[in-house]
Amino acid sequence: MDYSTMLPSQVRALIRDGKITTQTSGMCAGYAQANLLIIPKEHAYDFLLFTQRNPKSCPVLEVGDTGDRLVKRIANADIATDIPKYRVWENGVLTGEYTDISHLWRDDFVYFLIGCSFSFEGELLAQDVPVRHIEEGRNVPMYITNMPCEKAGIFHGNVVVSMRPMPADQVIRAVSITASMPRVHGAPVHIGDPAQIGIKDISKPDFGDAVMVKNGEIPVFWCCGVTPQSVVMSTKPPIAITHSPGHMFITDVKNSLLKD
Amino acid sequence: MDYSTMLPSQVRALIRDGKITTQTSGMCAGYAQANLLIIPKEHAYDFLLFTQRNPKSCPVLEVGDTGDRLVKRIANADIATDIPKYRVWENGVLTGEYTDISHLWRDDFVYFLIGCSFSFEGELLAQDVPVRHIEEGRNVPMYITNMPCEKAGIFHGNVVVSMRPMPADQVIRAVSITASMPRVHGAPVHIGDPAQIGIKDISKPDFGDAVMVKNGEIPVFWCCGVTPQSVVMSTKPPIAITHSPGHMFITDVKNSLLKD
Repeated sequence: MDYSTMLPSQVRALIRDGKITTQTSGMCAGYAQANLLIIPKEHAYDFLLFTQRNPKSCPVLEVGDTGDRLVKRIANADIATDIPKYRVWENGVLTGEYTDISHLWRDDFVYFLIGCSFSFEGELLAQDVPVRHIEEGRNVPMYITNMPCEKAGIFHGNVVVSMRPMPADQVIRAVSITASMPRVHGAPVHIGDPAQIGIKDISKPDFGDAVMVKNGEIPVFWCCGVTPQSVVMSTKPPIAITHSPGHMFITDVKNSLLKD
Repeated sequence: MDYSTMLPSQVRALIRDGKITTQTSGMCAGYAQANLLIIPKEHAYDFLLFTQRNPKSCPVLEVGDTGDRLVKRIANADIATDIPKYRVWENGVLTGEYTDISHLWRDDFVYFLIGCSFSFEGELLAQDVPVRHIEEGRNVPMYITNMPCEKAGIFHGNVVVSMRPMPADQVIRAVSITASMPRVHGAPVHIGDPAQIGIKDISKPDFGDAVMVKNGEIPVFWCCGVTPQSVVMSTKPPIAITHSPGHMFITDVKNSLLKD
């Protein structure tokens, strides 16, 4: 089956039935995908405030009502069943992976769905800006920087960035395209010298895969949806649930509508 | 003294010393002004979630830490002394106006500073779009619509809009200018027929002053910073503190920097 041309509701149904448990990259072309974080209400205010203070890292697309599994605004879905793979974290330690978390759901859980750079990659490609990791069939390289996020309550940590190398004459276009999409990380946070943001070796990403940076190309860095996950893990709350990397929530919202 | 050319820190010092107790319209030209809401921590999560679900009505510029009076990000100020006039609301009823609320401050108070359309009016004028209430020396006309806000916890109510009439050939420019400023309400929410959003008589605003709509002019409606105040009042929390209409918080952030 060609998942790229299917509707989000169709793919989510296959995920819910356990028929898709793989990464979602490329599925439902044109529709936004989202990062997931589930935490108890006890920590939800601190995290929501963290997203307000760090909007480039954590552009929130939807927050559920306390205890409510249903996604109502950016999709019509069940957050406990409609993602291919979940990760459970206890005190910052990964304790399990599941394809369904119905049995773990609690009345005090709150879900946060956060914008993902998959959305702007489609726009970059549409305007002929190269996206190296897609060309190479790899996951995007991600790095933990030396730039602290703005602290909020218990949540703190450094900004995680994704990197896409490109010829110098494409950088301005890439800034312009992504600046118009603030709900999926917006404009880059850094252009050029990786050392200035604390990245020692561009060939050794902290998450994802290394990609080739060709002679004369400029590395361009965007805030990354892994930041909230990384921050939650360094903050070590008693319980948190996230998606498994690359196994995103597929929304009913078209990328082109995330521009306002 | 010409307050329009003074720095925000200078005007806030005069406000703090009780030497300015008037409306702040026109002060510190070029710098953003903000709406204020203070509520106890008990209701802060619900309100922060309300702002996330209603970003056009409630574009948050800064949220304080619980119990902290200091504004640190968009100014260096004391939120309990640096606004010319405050209003105290108990169970949705106005019970007092003060020029200083230091004596009322509580360890569980959280302040929210929310973007204000003063910021985009400067941009409209700079690009020759008329702003009628400024021409007429009046307060902007504001109306309670029939459009419900997205509910969050205890907070609910209808969207309040401000209205600016203009020739049809200026409307597109006004949309374009304000769409680029999402942190101060962004693009209009409605253009044209007031009845479609529940406004029965354009000459009778619910807040502010009526302005002349000339023959052939189109009324253009923007989400308004009075919405959170109106919603809080209809929700009737035990205690809330706001600025007094027109008596805004003057930030150190230039309007032109609210575009990203």
